[in-house]
Amino acid sequence: MSKVTVEQAAAMLKSADRVLILIHHFPDGDTIGSGYALCHALQRLGKTARVLCHDVIPEKYEYMLGVADQGTFEPEFICAVDVADRVLLGASLQEYADHVDLCIDHHGSHREFEKHLLLDATAGANAMIMLQVIEQLGVEIDNVIADCLYTGIATDTGCFKYSNTSALTHRMAATLIEAGAQTEAINRAMFDIKSRARMLLEKLALQSIAFYDHDRCAVMCVTTDMIRESGAAENDMEGLSPLTRQIEGVWVGVMLREKKDGGYKVSIRTGTHADASAICALLGGGGHARAAGCSLVGTQEEVIAQVRDAIHRAVPRITQ
Amino acid sequence: MSKVTVEQAAAMLKSADRVLILIHHFPDGDTIGSGYALCHALQRLGKTARVLCHDVIPEKYEYMLGVADQGTFEPEFICAVDVADRVLLGASLQEYADHVDLCIDHHGSHREFEKHLLLDATAGANAMIMLQVIEQLGVEIDNVIADCLYTGIATDTGCFKYSNTSALTHRMAATLIEAGAQTEAINRAMFDIKSRARMLLEKLALQSIAFYDHDRCAVMCVTTDMIRESGAAENDMEGLSPLTRQIEGVWVGVMLREKKDGGYKVSIRTGTHADASAICALLGGGGHARAAGCSLVGTQEEVIAQVRDAIHRAVPRITQ
Repeated sequence: MSKVTVEQAAAMLKSADRVLILIHHFPDGDTIGSGYALCHALQRLGKTARVLCHDVIPEKYEYMLGVADQGTFEPEFICAVDVADRVLLGASLQEYADHVDLCIDHHGSHREFEKHLLLDATAGANAMIMLQVIEQLGVEIDNVIADCLYTGIATDTGCFKYSNTSALTHRMAATLIEAGAQTEAINRAMFDIKSRARMLLEKLALQSIAFYDHDRCAVMCVTTDMIRESGAAENDMEGLSPLTRQIEGVWVGVMLREKKDGGYKVSIRTGTHADASAICALLGGGGHARAAGCSLVGTQEEVIAQVRDAIHRAVPRITQ
Repeated sequence: MSKVTVEQAAAMLKSADRVLILIHHFPDGDTIGSGYALCHALQRLGKTARVLCHDVIPEKYEYMLGVADQGTFEPEFICAVDVADRVLLGASLQEYADHVDLCIDHHGSHREFEKHLLLDATAGANAMIMLQVIEQLGVEIDNVIADCLYTGIATDTGCFKYSNTSALTHRMAATLIEAGAQTEAINRAMFDIKSRARMLLEKLALQSIAFYDHDRCAVMCVTTDMIRESGAAENDMEGLSPLTRQIEGVWVGVMLREKKDGGYKVSIRTGTHADASAICALLGGGGHARAAGCSLVGTQEEVIAQVRDAIHRAVPRITQ
């Protein structure tokens, strides 16, 4: 594997005529936006290009998919986009994992599987790197490409709310707005609209919240019954666990999600008063300072007791 | 009243030594951020300056208030900030309404009451105008001023989500980040943290949602009982009504809020399929295409029947 610059990556893409673009499974706005922006750009240059994903692209992202359908073809060059590890290509794309010529990624945790790697772990979104690659390809950023890249940047930065948002992130958003990105419609689709099942699940989950330790610990339970009752699908579960940490005065937010095969998936979210990874390390899990997780077996009451015990050991001040 | 440019406004402020800054009542992030940024800037220039507000500034904005306390003084120049109408000064500041030398505002609906007006209705936030004024004053944007102005911009644009966000908005955010704005902490305090009362109220409100007309109409009721049970204060009510419109497939979202003296305050929120102002016009109210309101008397059932009838007349396709 060799690391390459934006200029070198663009030169490689420019020299190939038939390019296959791979994005990660469980696709999100950034991998789809980056992948389709590149596909649009390569087709503008008269090349043959298509995007492959292990999963069906969720309907809400459809506005980015309007590339020409050039059918299947023998790829001359394979480019993976926002794929931090070969396993993230998903089962049906594993056959390509050993043949990836270039990977364009922004994950600090990237595990090499490609011939060439364009990595910028300071980029809040992969679409920020892709904007530079497309500019280097000499393709004008039109409104279609701008929609794709804006979507990638907005979704990976929580609409410019997360700490991975830099001055450069905002400058790139400005460029994309001037290029015609339909930010109002995109932001509404990405951040406002919730499925009815998600709304129902949120209601049930909020009902379940119990407070402990001077209300500094909030525990929310999502049971298989709730998921069945609400009709929630996997993508309706996104962003539920942070709800616990949003409550004023809460140091440690806990979400328990009942697993189909028994036991619970535990997600811990903390503010500045507690270290989520330290709590989860005591429970055989791990993660980051503000977001960590683990899996536990037992009844709901037993699991809550285990988690609370770990919290008391990792954050003794919480009971004082 | 005469309209002035950024340069003229800055020249006026520069020529005054004792400046009183007035912000609007029920203060929000933009009026506080704009007002305190100006106060910080004027004090940096060696002037005497203070900010007055009819209401107490909510605690979550405290990080912006660290100006020097120079006591009371006889103002030489009075500047109102983000005040679209004299009544918005609030009762205790009405004595100043006829003596405002300069108003800096971004509301297209501004009603004149000042001697000089710096108005830019294209600015998504008043803080965008203030950034230009402070730069024109020759004051360096340090991290304290950057925190104030970033807060104004972020809060008035829904953290860059609303359609009033322009390329210039993002470019200014980039400038403020480079000047040291603590965006992570600010965004968390402004957009993530909810009071426990608000969380409880949201749970109760979500429980109350009923769907009509092929689930295209969602009606949520907030009763005085719910407000009492949750312990919610007035500022816990912000942003509740859009919840109805966030549900996938909903054309018309209705929030009824029971009034203390009987009857209901009705808030209508719509997507692109329906005109909220047309619905409310039939009920003696008014507003904008996506957000409108009215007041109705009667029991909850009677009010819902009246609202549904108006919806059917204004949006006949909803029942088909």
